[in-house]
Amino acid sequence: MPFNVAILGASGYTGAELVRIIATHPELRIVALSADRKAGMAMGDVFPHLRHLDLPQLVQTGEIDFSGIDLVFCALPHGLSQALVAQLPTHLKIVDLGADFRLRDPAEYEKWYGAPHVALDLQKEAVYGLTEFYRDDIKSARLVAGTGCNAATVQFALRPLIEAGVIDLDEIICDLKNGVSGAGRSLKENMLFAERSEDVAGYSQGGKHRHLSEFDQEFSAIAGRPVRIVFTPHLVPVNRGILATIYLKGDAQAVYDALAQRYADEPFVVVLPFGQLPAMSHVQGSNFCHIGVTADRISGRVLVVSTLDNLNKGSSGQAVQNANLMLGLDETTGLMLAPIFP
Amino acid sequence: MPFNVAILGASGYTGAELVRIIATHPELRIVALSADRKAGMAMGDVFPHLRHLDLPQLVQTGEIDFSGIDLVFCALPHGLSQALVAQLPTHLKIVDLGADFRLRDPAEYEKWYGAPHVALDLQKEAVYGLTEFYRDDIKSARLVAGTGCNAATVQFALRPLIEAGVIDLDEIICDLKNGVSGAGRSLKENMLFAERSEDVAGYSQGGKHRHLSEFDQEFSAIAGRPVRIVFTPHLVPVNRGILATIYLKGDAQAVYDALAQRYADEPFVVVLPFGQLPAMSHVQGSNFCHIGVTADRISGRVLVVSTLDNLNKGSSGQAVQNANLMLGLDETTGLMLAPIFP
Amino acid sequence: MPFNVAILGASGYTGAELVRIIATHPELRIVALSADRKAGMAMGDVFPHLRHLDLPQLVQTGEIDFSGIDLVFCALPHGLSQALVAQLPTHLKIVDLGADFRLRDPAEYEKWYGAPHVALDLQKEAVYGLTEFYRDDIKSARLVAGTGCNAATVQFALRPLIEAGVIDLDEIICDLKNGVSGAGRSLKENMLFAERSEDVAGYSQGGKHRHLSEFDQEFSAIAGRPVRIVFTPHLVPVNRGILATIYLKGDAQAVYDALAQRYADEPFVVVLPFGQLPAMSHVQGSNFCHIGVTADRISGRVLVVSTLDNLNKGSSGQAVQNANLMLGLDETTGLMLAPIFP
Amino acid sequence: MPFNVAILGASGYTGAELVRIIATHPELRIVALSADRKAGMAMGDVFPHLRHLDLPQLVQTGEIDFSGIDLVFCALPHGLSQALVAQLPTHLKIVDLGADFRLRDPAEYEKWYGAPHVALDLQKEAVYGLTEFYRDDIKSARLVAGTGCNAATVQFALRPLIEAGVIDLDEIICDLKNGVSGAGRSLKENMLFAERSEDVAGYSQGGKHRHLSEFDQEFSAIAGRPVRIVFTPHLVPVNRGILATIYLKGDAQAVYDALAQRYADEPFVVVLPFGQLPAMSHVQGSNFCHIGVTADRISGRVLVVSTLDNLNKGSSGQAVQNANLMLGLDETTGLMLAPIFP
Repeated sequence: MPFNVAILGASGYTGAELVRIIATHPELRIVALSADRKAGMAMGDVFPHLRHLDLPQLVQTGEIDFSGIDLVFCALPHGLSQALVAQLPTHLKIVDLGADFRLRDPAEYEKWYGAPHVALDLQKEAVYGLTEFYRDDIKSARLVAGTGCNAATVQFALRPLIEAGVIDLDEIICDLKNGVSGAGRSLKENMLFAERSEDVAGYSQGGKHRHLSEFDQEFSAIAGRPVRIVFTPHLVPVNRGILATIYLKGDAQAVYDALAQRYADEPFVVVLPFGQLPAMSHVQGSNFCHIGVTADRISGRVLVVSTLDNLNKGSSGQAVQNANLMLGLDETTGLMLAPIFP
Repeated sequence: MPFNVAILGASGYTGAELVRIIATHPELRIVALSADRKAGMAMGDVFPHLRHLDLPQLVQTGEIDFSGIDLVFCALPHGLSQALVAQLPTHLKIVDLGADFRLRDPAEYEKWYGAPHVALDLQKEAVYGLTEFYRDDIKSARLVAGTGCNAATVQFALRPLIEAGVIDLDEIICDLKNGVSGAGRSLKENMLFAERSEDVAGYSQGGKHRHLSEFDQEFSAIAGRPVRIVFTPHLVPVNRGILATIYLKGDAQAVYDALAQRYADEPFVVVLPFGQLPAMSHVQGSNFCHIGVTADRISGRVLVVSTLDNLNKGSSGQAVQNANLMLGLDETTGLMLAPIFP
Repeated sequence: MPFNVAILGASGYTGAELVRIIATHPELRIVALSADRKAGMAMGDVFPHLRHLDLPQLVQTGEIDFSGIDLVFCALPHGLSQALVAQLPTHLKIVDLGADFRLRDPAEYEKWYGAPHVALDLQKEAVYGLTEFYRDDIKSARLVAGTGCNAATVQFALRPLIEAGVIDLDEIICDLKNGVSGAGRSLKENMLFAERSEDVAGYSQGGKHRHLSEFDQEFSAIAGRPVRIVFTPHLVPVNRGILATIYLKGDAQAVYDALAQRYADEPFVVVLPFGQLPAMSHVQGSNFCHIGVTADRISGRVLVVSTLDNLNKGSSGQAVQNANLMLGLDETTGLMLAPIFP
Repeated sequence: MPFNVAILGASGYTGAELVRIIATHPELRIVALSADRKAGMAMGDVFPHLRHLDLPQLVQTGEIDFSGIDLVFCALPHGLSQALVAQLPTHLKIVDLGADFRLRDPAEYEKWYGAPHVALDLQKEAVYGLTEFYRDDIKSARLVAGTGCNAATVQFALRPLIEAGVIDLDEIICDLKNGVSGAGRSLKENMLFAERSEDVAGYSQGGKHRHLSEFDQEFSAIAGRPVRIVFTPHLVPVNRGILATIYLKGDAQAVYDALAQRYADEPFVVVLPFGQLPAMSHVQGSNFCHIGVTADRISGRVLVVSTLDNLNKGSSGQAVQNANLMLGLDETTGLMLAPIFP
């Protein structure tokens, strides 16, 4: 018998991607969808590509009867989850896709997100949702905090290298190319087609992007000392995908070996043969992350490229992967959809 | 136990799409892949988005041992299937995705394709692969000829209307907007990114497109008299998708009713509520076709819009749907993947 | 000595395009720019591609001293010009790029735009701005009403044909493919990059688009009896450009001759050799309109394709062309910029 | 009286861009166009966007009578200019847009381009065409070698910083995002629309890109010691534009001051206010280069972003700028076209 799940904030892109994935997931059944501004609408009217599915109507979150529900996906805008989750029945397992529970330190949260956290107990309880590195904790967690999509892309490349001690921790430069769906469906002038098409533009440059807080937290914890990376995201005119070009100092072969070994048994993280680099179009629409390593002509410099689909492996796919673990299912259930190309 | 299938011509886009679909198809197993120019390569090197799959290496078609194979998908360039299929062992079921077996009349074939057909017996034997209209014949067929992608898009809209006698047969105008993957992966200057991006251009206009031969054949057969339609395809800068805007004379409500009634029980053809029109992004990556109808302000004029994914419902999805029938499987097996958006 | 001009509504795309064109216009000097919401900003901050120009700061329209100004371009949202223009000093020549003064019949205006016109005298005085057909009136006009961009594209193709009596007036079907900049810079969910990219979608279909009012007015006037056309625009993922595919009944050669003859001496309207059709990328960034004609395989059916840049020939280029005439300059001054490709 | 110019290799994108620029250049007149494969065609058939211009027909280079010609633009594929230029009449001034004359050291040429240079005298004579830094030499040169488009983008950012000694020369990392027109119009599978659309992919990574040879030559010369930079270009789905994100060590304000001061009087290189970064869409279609500087949150790290249009400032615009100097014209003649947006 499948598990019953609800999606809160189903009218955004990550909400739609959750529905798309769950549509062919054999063990999950969507029994409630909420979207405050679009409550009352059919999901197939908000997202006509989901029109063929038999889905519950969008309602206000407050209207949902959670008694028969096993797990809730919160795909709400940042800042809205903390108060809401605090009020949910405690029998629910919760996968939060937003930023509210990613940081363990309340002071860091306030610094990066501009307001004090209102659910400190939950913040403490939440498990960081980078599945491949928090698998055991996630299995027994009640509340899992999905990672930032950029944060996932870069951590897949760097965590094994920091752990293995094969790179210079003070010389990490990450240049990201980001598909625009990462900005969500909200109305901003710079997200109009005519503004993004035929353009590439950096944003939050110079160390201002909030996902840096996740890098600070995670990398410093692994290294046992503060680690600060350089991180510049750029909007590129594609719908989905993040490609991180990472410039490092270290021995290229040692870097490669650390990655290849770490991910040898992981179903969703693929390390390419040495010298080959992945492209964004190799993973779109899927829960896969591809990583490549090459040496630079300058001795001691290494290039690592990591790419994933921000809506899928970077968000909704990761969420389902975590939900699978939390519900005792095989981790890959429903997630083996191949990428779509072209 | 799954059926064993081979894909001939696996290095093109429809070949890759077949692999993508079959990757999560529970009853089909790919045991051979051929691609003459790229024989010897791994499929994951030709199409890195399929890298995670455990697939046989690409070989020459002649190297395949067909003895344990149940069904073959031919995704070869037009003109190459006829000689090849004639040489295949007769125990094989064959789904051809090209144009070689679509026309029943050898003279028509020669007229539109510029050379006499070399396998007239097979041409006669082949069943036209528009599943929703040739379902019973397909079930018992040995050789099924997949339709043109444009031909499918337009026929889904027009066949029920011609059958129901609700439109003027001499006043059918079809304006198509076509994603560029329909042109395949071959090298042509006008298919370069810099040529297609930021452009819209008609092609084969004035009645020169080969898919007209399918319309001539099919519509005339239904109507019992010659039917000739106006048909203009246009390249638009999207990867996948065909959107056909069809201008008709008739009663809009009667047109709507004929379509709604015809497709009420079809799993893959969705007729929208009267007055709503579909968009290309509603079906990409899926085996669905969406159709909408609206009345024009000019009395007696109707607009019908039909859209599908040329690589999927227009080609490889249709092929799998037909293969399911030929193998005695449920028609929808492996094909309920939701469209991908954005 | 150059003429002094002001641009009201300079923060939209047509405002920016006016500035871009005038930047290399030898006889026009921009002395005032207004934009109510962005008043106080530098134009180079609103549109960084114009950063190198020495331009006046954006102000509220009310702050402009019109005494030294010769001509005003109004690039305001529809509905805002009528009250404003009524208050401008009467020495000013005015080119309005919006819809307020396009229709001569107040009842028609109210029907299509949903509110009564508030400046009926001006509505009566205004000259319709399709330069190639109202040239003499424009030369002596004080107020010229720029045409709709779709309206221009289709009229260039159809006016000479209606005039010459070579087509069936009851069988005119216009299928348009529209770049998204035509929707302007305002915030709408369906104009986000992730919504428009990889999509084609019709809109205002069935006879609801406001530019139909211009066709009704102009074509009926030429024909001397009511003419109603079928007209369906579609959003395609390109920034600039309109390509109109027009399906007609008539003799293809007669249609071609009527167009070729009419535009033989026009500097900006190019009729291609018989049988060739233009593409959107042939005119982007320029004031040119390209028109092609081909016969259909069905006798008596003709295809005419017309394409122009909606922001340039369809709006701001047309406006400068009209301003040149109103100021006694050579009509082509500053407008011979070649299209940009790729 | 204008100068007579010829364009050799006019059927490629840089050839077309030369024609587009010269179309409104008051002092240059195109009297010959060559394109070996397309000889005999009209330029307006090869590039329909240039159809309105009165241009000579494409011929074989050997058919051109150079006697009345003042200056030749060579827009030939790399490797073809050297033999050709050696045979041209010596009265001609020559601007070569290819790579043949960029490197001063024959050994370096052979190392990066895989064959010995066949015109060593000319290689020695040629002046490197980065106008803003070789202005005086260019004025008196007979042969000017246009820079690589990537090479120009990065040098505008780095030359003043190396000269001023404000950055660590061993810590220069350049991550480039490149529009696809830089690959030219030749047929390659990875340049098809369906391959590049919705994708970002690095290429020539790890220090294999030939433009590195220009950096090695130029930066080492300025620094007076070998300088090696890290340089990774990425294909992004836009037609035109290069955006270089450059990671440096130094004092951000000192870096900014060096750039602002250096370009204060340059007409085409614009340094943005401190902390602002340019986007690709700010310069497309123009001869401008925009540069921005911001400090990283990590003390001592600086981000410099430089962007230009690869076909214009990176190639054909630069070529015209150099031609202006060589012919004694004002350097900006014909080049003040504003960028096109959107």
